[in-house]
Amino acid sequence: MENNLPSLRDFSAESLSHGNVKLLEEAARKARIDVLTMVTLAESGHPAGSLSSLEMYLTTYGVANLTPENCNSVDRDYVVISHGHTSPGAYATLAAWGFFKPLDAVANFRLCSSPFQGHVERNVPGIDWGSGNLGQGLAAGVGFALAQKARAHDGRVFVLMGDGEQTKGQVAEARRIAAKEGLSNITALIDYNHIQISGRTEEVMPVDVRALWEADGWGVLECDGHSFEELYTALRDGVNDEVPTVIICHTQMGKDVSYMEGVPDYHGKAPNRDQYEKAVRELGGNPDYLEKAKARRGNPVPSGRKIVTTINNLLYGEPRTYGSEKKTDNRSAFGNALADVGTLNYKREGSMPLLVFDCDLAGSVKTSDFAKNCPEWFVQTGIQEHATATTAGAASVAGVASLWAGFGVFGLSEVYNQQRLNDINKTNLKLALTHVGLDVGEDGMTHQAIDYVGLMRNMFGWKLLVPADPNQTDRATRWALREAGNVCIAMGRSKLPVITNEGGEPLFAGDYSFEYGKAAKVRDGEEGAIFALGAMTWRALEAWELLRNKGLNFKLFSVATPLEIDQKALEEASATGLILSVEDHHYHNGLGASLALAMAEGNLHGKLVPLGVRSYGASGRSEDVVAAMGLDGASIAAKAEACLKERK
Amino acid sequence: MENNLPSLRDFSAESLSHGNVKLLEEAARKARIDVLTMVTLAESGHPAGSLSSLEMYLTTYGVANLTPENCNSVDRDYVVISHGHTSPGAYATLAAWGFFKPLDAVANFRLCSSPFQGHVERNVPGIDWGSGNLGQGLAAGVGFALAQKARAHDGRVFVLMGDGEQTKGQVAEARRIAAKEGLSNITALIDYNHIQISGRTEEVMPVDVRALWEADGWGVLECDGHSFEELYTALRDGVNDEVPTVIICHTQMGKDVSYMEGVPDYHGKAPNRDQYEKAVRELGGNPDYLEKAKARRGNPVPSGRKIVTTINNLLYGEPRTYGSEKKTDNRSAFGNALADVGTLNYKREGSMPLLVFDCDLAGSVKTSDFAKNCPEWFVQTGIQEHATATTAGAASVAGVASLWAGFGVFGLSEVYNQQRLNDINKTNLKLALTHVGLDVGEDGMTHQAIDYVGLMRNMFGWKLLVPADPNQTDRATRWALREAGNVCIAMGRSKLPVITNEGGEPLFAGDYSFEYGKAAKVRDGEEGAIFALGAMTWRALEAWELLRNKGLNFKLFSVATPLEIDQKALEEASATGLILSVEDHHYHNGLGASLALAMAEGNLHGKLVPLGVRSYGASGRSEDVVAAMGLDGASIAAKAEACLKERK
Repeated sequence: MENNLPSLRDFSAESLSHGNVKLLEEAARKARIDVLTMVTLAESGHPAGSLSSLEMYLTTYGVANLTPENCNSVDRDYVVISHGHTSPGAYATLAAWGFFKPLDAVANFRLCSSPFQGHVERNVPGIDWGSGNLGQGLAAGVGFALAQKARAHDGRVFVLMGDGEQTKGQVAEARRIAAKEGLSNITALIDYNHIQISGRTEEVMPVDVRALWEADGWGVLECDGHSFEELYTALRDGVNDEVPTVIICHTQMGKDVSYMEGVPDYHGKAPNRDQYEKAVRELGGNPDYLEKAKARRGNPVPSGRKIVTTINNLLYGEPRTYGSEKKTDNRSAFGNALADVGTLNYKREGSMPLLVFDCDLAGSVKTSDFAKNCPEWFVQTGIQEHATATTAGAASVAGVASLWAGFGVFGLSEVYNQQRLNDINKTNLKLALTHVGLDVGEDGMTHQAIDYVGLMRNMFGWKLLVPADPNQTDRATRWALREAGNVCIAMGRSKLPVITNEGGEPLFAGDYSFEYGKAAKVRDGEEGAIFALGAMTWRALEAWELLRNKGLNFKLFSVATPLEIDQKALEEASATGLILSVEDHHYHNGLGASLALAMAEGNLHGKLVPLGVRSYGASGRSEDVVAAMGLDGASIAAKAEACLKERK
Repeated sequence: MENNLPSLRDFSAESLSHGNVKLLEEAARKARIDVLTMVTLAESGHPAGSLSSLEMYLTTYGVANLTPENCNSVDRDYVVISHGHTSPGAYATLAAWGFFKPLDAVANFRLCSSPFQGHVERNVPGIDWGSGNLGQGLAAGVGFALAQKARAHDGRVFVLMGDGEQTKGQVAEARRIAAKEGLSNITALIDYNHIQISGRTEEVMPVDVRALWEADGWGVLECDGHSFEELYTALRDGVNDEVPTVIICHTQMGKDVSYMEGVPDYHGKAPNRDQYEKAVRELGGNPDYLEKAKARRGNPVPSGRKIVTTINNLLYGEPRTYGSEKKTDNRSAFGNALADVGTLNYKREGSMPLLVFDCDLAGSVKTSDFAKNCPEWFVQTGIQEHATATTAGAASVAGVASLWAGFGVFGLSEVYNQQRLNDINKTNLKLALTHVGLDVGEDGMTHQAIDYVGLMRNMFGWKLLVPADPNQTDRATRWALREAGNVCIAMGRSKLPVITNEGGEPLFAGDYSFEYGKAAKVRDGEEGAIFALGAMTWRALEAWELLRNKGLNFKLFSVATPLEIDQKALEEASATGLILSVEDHHYHNGLGASLALAMAEGNLHGKLVPLGVRSYGASGRSEDVVAAMGLDGASIAAKAEACLKERK
């Protein structure tokens, strides 16, 4: 689509020409009318902040090498809108720069199934990050900037933010990562209009914006956020600076609409018809535009662009096989596989970079070997999990492979909403969680991630792998790195026996290859069935042997993908009339609950006995904690035997 | 228990006497031996940070008015340990100050079912906040300080922190709340030893500690963190300051053990026997202590103190009744009930304060009337949800009633781990979530809290109320405010019809009173049963009427407590052979999943059809979004009819 705006992209001019300023001012006038028409027609939305950010939007999308033509590639600049509720301003700006027809957005704003959602989403061309929950945008921008740097690409990243969100802790975390990593390729712009929902920012929650950005190592510029000349010059100065730069843009809430200027109420309130007419006339427009837009609403609903799932392009190497003579912890098997893949690809001509993020736990989560072998791909982000989750997620859709390894409670429980936003943004993150379940050593209840299956069950896109032993971990790790989309692999802390078949050979080696959604049948029997979640398989196998010694033969299935129940295995198990599920996870929300739902939906009968965690665990050796919960082999066997007796 | 240490509590001395310094130094020497013995015996734990914090611990517990005698009351000072992994140092200090016998902790550290967990928990006398996940302690301290202020009590709060956690965003949020609220009664101490797990803090993640605390409005002092004189003087100066004060304590990791000093490896590694002997001899102790402790390990396991659940003491007023002639949104009914309770108790002689927290959403979450009527009880914490969750939680166990109201995605999804820590800490928080489910207006998928039941199902103590209409909301709100422990009430945005009985009278009024765990039977029938979650009841009732008009009679149950399934209602429903569950929540983890698990555990048969959310929702009017998900009355009825046909 054509537009009549001047390209400002190479910053060749030291300042904006008078003619270009006039063109941009006219574009701003029209965009303001678009904003007002959008929210009036939808009868909801956020007009005043959109008007406040408008010159920032128009200038940023003008200087950024982000166009309708290149916006689906990765060789370009990125723009992140952190205050996603100002979507009307963003849509009006993107239309002005030719990403789509203005009326498409104006007519279909906040209409069910339209891409022009209340908060910006990635299926609108030109939107690089879906936001809405405040405070996440800067961390996403840092992820894009890290990816650019790792790819040795000279693209830049611009992050537009509100002033209310300057108080969010995640912003500070992201600032520090940018400064530490020397990301001179990122520029943030703050819409500093001093108004948030509850009133003036100074009264709602005072924050010394300039001092905090400076303390965290950023260059700070200030400008009139409604002056195209000043915005252009500040952006140009920021781009040429050697540190990450923030531009504090002094603006006015509701700019150019007399009754909205400086009024907090218009943060999230649409004008009525009379107010609309008044505003449009003030802007020299024709209020009939509203009727024209109304006639187009939903007629048709625009489809938006398709988000293509990112696919990694690495060499994944050959699986390692761990023999049954020795116990190995799954996290070490993961670390070995990761180091294998890293070493195979590091410095290999044409390889995609594989960034591995760490929040001060590399030794425990076994990414140290990778760090040693691939130092430039290892990103230490400190004890800053919220920013790291978003940063690693954004990087994963910007031309690099991206993995974050952390304890279960830090990589998921602490940052659940960030991982949910990664899900919404259809990122390609690989998340390695260690110390899950009760298997955290003696660290106690705060560190026991007994909720990771439950948390992932709230998502729609994440895949979750919970391997049974080091061999399955190796294969699952390589599978995860290759698989498109968000994949999480969850592991405990302890060394585990290798699971073997009845002949004593490793079950998850040789011909075995990892298959998502398939339960592994470890042993057969007729009296009942046991489903064990991942690393609980060896304990269930202990139980199986105790039962067999009493002449009680159970089926034993090992489940590595609790979000995708193997319906065939479940039917076979259900036919026995008795199913026990075994997991060191909250029994409400893990494997047992998944089986119960699958049985109910499939109308499969039989008694289900969900063995799991029913209170916060104690601090002690893992085997003591597990036994105290009745989840050791002997307890499982006793429970299975009791259930059989009850039935007879 | 007696101790031979001097009381430093009234700060009457300008500085510590030489004699007192000597007594404290001797206590520190013994405590260091206790620390080393603990971790050596448990073969795990965090020795080096414990040694680093030891003088800070001993001095703080010396000056704090927190004693074995008063530690179960609220009229005293509070001490929060944010770097909870340094528990050995804390236990050794508490023992030195007479809270329990040293050998109780030394022998039973990190032993299953002992209170002396790897990370400090509240069942150890003298521990005011269980921690372990870094960065939360300051926010807890702010909650205690706010409670003291609201109670007009002159008690003080001391928060001990690590240096690694200075990067956590939540710390910055908590700082700002303290400064804005003028909490001169709080003092923070940072153990600045420059070492974290991965190496020197300056290299892992640089942070200008002094500049950030100053920028956020705190007074900053510095001292030698191993000098009792300097610590005492700094604490005295901080207590007398008119702003919140932080003391940067310059310390040495592993202090006084030659081979541990400045070595990151000893962050989380216990010494072996030889190393233990060497360390104890360096400290002038007798290594035989280890054997003595070993003999006592688990023999018996000490029981710890019982955490008494806090009970609010307010007047709760009479319920309001909303007539069926008018629709009302549940959030307004909540806001009215809250304002009623506030007004009844505000300025009432002897009333417990009721603090209501807001993160810049009062108008939308309907706490504005409360704020107007009870201004001194209303705490505006800005867009800082992480700190607010912890602050509100801590306040709730410090002599005030505490409620936080926010959108579902902000009050729970964004701060899930903070609410989990509130659960672990057995707080007494009331959490009002609005805009849950698909009922968020046009804000779109980032704002749709379709996971709140699933998140709460990961907890053990939280109660969750999802009322069906304004009448049930009113009664549930008053019930929640009165009920001990953590209670969450979840509401959508839209105005809803009042649910009536077959005679047309409001069902949740008159003789009705809210009962936790009881499903309300709205209509009867024999063909099958429908369970509707909270505010979906009116849509299910629409479906019920459509079905009845076709001669198909279903039972209809309204479920307000999805975490506690009404087993009797479920049995009655199951007997029909067909159950549909209806909720605007992820179908994996909400009411349907709870019913499935309860059916499986109860061995109840019948087909269960869980109707719920199966993809992220669009941005549009709530009724459009709900219809697009097949959750409107007509779709529910059609599904029920199809299920009946399938069965026949």
